[in-house]
Amino acid sequence: MSVRVFVTGGTFDKEYDELTGTLHFDATHLPEMLRRGRCMIDVSVDVLMMIDSLEMKEAHRLQIVQACQAATESQIVITHGTDTMVDTARVLAAELPDKTIVLTGAMVPYAFGSSDGLFNLGSALSFVQTLPPGVYIAMNGRYFTADNVAKNRNVGVFEETVDSSRDAL
Amino acid sequence: MSVRVFVTGGTFDKEYDELTGTLHFDATHLPEMLRRGRCMIDVSVDVLMMIDSLEMKEAHRLQIVQACQAATESQIVITHGTDTMVDTARVLAAELPDKTIVLTGAMVPYAFGSSDGLFNLGSALSFVQTLPPGVYIAMNGRYFTADNVAKNRNVGVFEETVDSSRDAL
Amino acid sequence: MSVRVFVTGGTFDKEYDELTGTLHFDATHLPEMLRRGRCMIDVSVDVLMMIDSLEMKEAHRLQIVQACQAATESQIVITHGTDTMVDTARVLAAELPDKTIVLTGAMVPYAFGSSDGLFNLGSALSFVQTLPPGVYIAMNGRYFTADNVAKNRNVGVFEETVDSSRDAL
Amino acid sequence: MSVRVFVTGGTFDKEYDELTGTLHFDATHLPEMLRRGRCMIDVSVDVLMMIDSLEMKEAHRLQIVQACQAATESQIVITHGTDTMVDTARVLAAELPDKTIVLTGAMVPYAFGSSDGLFNLGSALSFVQTLPPGVYIAMNGRYFTADNVAKNRNVGVFEETVDSSRDAL
Repeated sequence: MSVRVFVTGGTFDKEYDELTGTLHFDATHLPEMLRRGRCMIDVSVDVLMMIDSLEMKEAHRLQIVQACQAATESQIVITHGTDTMVDTARVLAAELPDKTIVLTGAMVPYAFGSSDGLFNLGSALSFVQTLPPGVYIAMNGRYFTADNVAKNRNVGVFEETVDSSRDAL
Repeated sequence: MSVRVFVTGGTFDKEYDELTGTLHFDATHLPEMLRRGRCMIDVSVDVLMMIDSLEMKEAHRLQIVQACQAATESQIVITHGTDTMVDTARVLAAELPDKTIVLTGAMVPYAFGSSDGLFNLGSALSFVQTLPPGVYIAMNGRYFTADNVAKNRNVGVFEETVDSSRDAL
Repeated sequence: MSVRVFVTGGTFDKEYDELTGTLHFDATHLPEMLRRGRCMIDVSVDVLMMIDSLEMKEAHRLQIVQACQAATESQIVITHGTDTMVDTARVLAAELPDKTIVLTGAMVPYAFGSSDGLFNLGSALSFVQTLPPGVYIAMNGRYFTADNVAKNRNVGVFEETVDSSRDAL
Repeated sequence: MSVRVFVTGGTFDKEYDELTGTLHFDATHLPEMLRRGRCMIDVSVDVLMMIDSLEMKEAHRLQIVQACQAATESQIVITHGTDTMVDTARVLAAELPDKTIVLTGAMVPYAFGSSDGLFNLGSALSFVQTLPPGVYIAMNGRYFTADNVAKNRNVGVFEETVDSSRDAL
C-alpha cells in the first residue's frame, strides 16, 4: 500500500527563529519524523504550502483538493494547522468521496521536546490504512468524520459536534 | 471506546542505569507517553511484568492470555519486546478469537531522543480501534496478522512470512 | 561554594502556549535544568520576574541590583533575555564592584529540543566560580566583561565591542 | 583563544544498537553538541579512541599524554568515561605541568534525552579558559584537581578525597 502525504504547514512544522524570537516556518519536519518512526510503509511526501491554517484561503483549499484528486494514491494524509482543519476537511469531503483522506496536526510544534506530533503522525498513517473511503480528522488518538467534528478552542481539543453517546438510546 | 493497555517491558521501557552503565527497567513510560500524545481515548494501563522479551517464558505468556481474557475491554494494546513478540502473538491468537489485540514495541528505548516508541504507540492505539477481531503486530507504521509475520533480525524489521504480493496473481 | 541564581525570564524560559499558538512564560525551567545537569554545586534559585528582556524597564533593573546586593553569596548567575542583557550588565557593573556576577541566557528556549540553554547554564555556573569580581556575560562558550560586549542582532551572537586582537600590537 | 578537544569515548558517546539491544560506540556526538551549544570559541576536535574507560590501558593513556604534548594549544578538554577518569588525570598531571587540561564526561549518554553531557561540556569549556595550568576533572558543575578527586561509585558522583572544608579550621 502506498500513502501520499501532503504537507500544508501548521503547528506541526513551526520552528523558533533565533533572530526574531518568534515562531516561523522553514523546511518541513516530515521526512525526519518518518525516519524517527522508522516508517516502513511506502510514503511519498509533497509540500503544498507552509502556512498557518488561520491564513488559509479558498485558493489554498482548492489547491489541496486538486492535489488529492491528482494523486494516484487512494490513501492520503494531510498535515494541517488545527485552527481551520475542520474547514478544509469539509471542502475535501464534498469533492473526494472515493478516497480515504486523514488530516492531522499537532498541538505543540515537533521541534519542541514535548510535541504530540510523532504520536499523531503514527496514528494518522494507521487510520488511513484501515478506515473506509471518507474524510477524517485524526488527533490525539481519536478519529472524527469531517461532518461531525469541531475544535474546542477553550481547551484545545477536537470533539464530536453531535453527541454520539446518544446512539445508544 | 475504551482501550486496555498491558505493559510487559521490552525495549520500549528500557532505561539507562547511571551506576552500572547498563540498560535496565524501572517504571513504565506509558503514562508519560500518553500525556505527551495528549491521548483523548479512554485508556487504562496495567503493568503485567517488566522484562526483556528474550526472558519471557510460557508462564509469562499464560499470564498475558489470562489478563486479556479477564479484561472487560474488547480492544487491547500490549507493549512487548520485539524479539519474541511474534511468539506471544501466536499464543494469543489461539486463545482469544473475539478481541482486537495489537502488540507493539520499539526498536529504540523511549528514553532515547531518537525512539520510534511514540510513533508506534499512536499507531497501535489507532489500529486497535479500526481492525476487526484478531491478533496483530503494529510496528513502524505497518500491521501484520499473527499468522503471517516474522522479525528479520539482520535488519531489525518485521516482515510478512508469506509474500502477500503473490495474492495478485 | 554557594551560588545564587536569579531568574528574570528571557528566551531561556519561554514555552509554547497550546491554546494561543504563541510563546509565553509559565514556571521557570531552572530547577529541571539543574537536575538534568546533576548539578553538585550548592545553588539556590530565586525567580525575580518572568519577562521578555525587551519589556525590562529601569524599575526591573533596580530590582535586580537590589537582589544582588541583598544576596549573601558573592557568586551570582542571572538568567536574562539576550536583547537587553548588555544594558542590565552595565547597570550591575556600576553598582556591584565586589561580586562575581555572570548573566546568561539562550538563543533558543530550553523547551525546544535544540536549545543551547543547558550548555550556557553549565558554562555560566563554571565561570562564576573562577572569574574575579566583576560583571560578565557568558553565552555560547565565551565570556565578556560588561564594558566590552554587544549583541550583534544580525547574526544573533555576542561580540566584543573593542577589538581585543589589537592588544597584541 | 583556541581550545583542543580530544575524544576518548565513555558514556558521553554511547549509543543504542538497535540490532543487538546493547550500548555501543559509533561516531562521536561532539560536533553536534558544539553546534547545539552554538559554541563560539575556536575549538578543534580530534577523536583519539572510542572506548569504555574500563577498557583503557597504559598504552591508551600514553597516547592521550602524547596527543596533549603534541597539541599547539595550551587549553585542552578531554571527554572520557567516568570509571577511570581519575587515573588518566593523574597520569596527565605527572607529565603536563604547563597546560590547562580539563577532563569531562557524562553520567548518562548524550543520545538519551536526560543526559548531563551538554551541561558538562559547557562547563568544561569554561573552566579550561579560566583555570591556571594544571589537570582538572569537571563534572556536574564542579571542578577538582587531579590529586584530590575520586569517583564515589555507590552514588555515581565525584568527590574530593581530602576534606577541603577542614581548610577553614
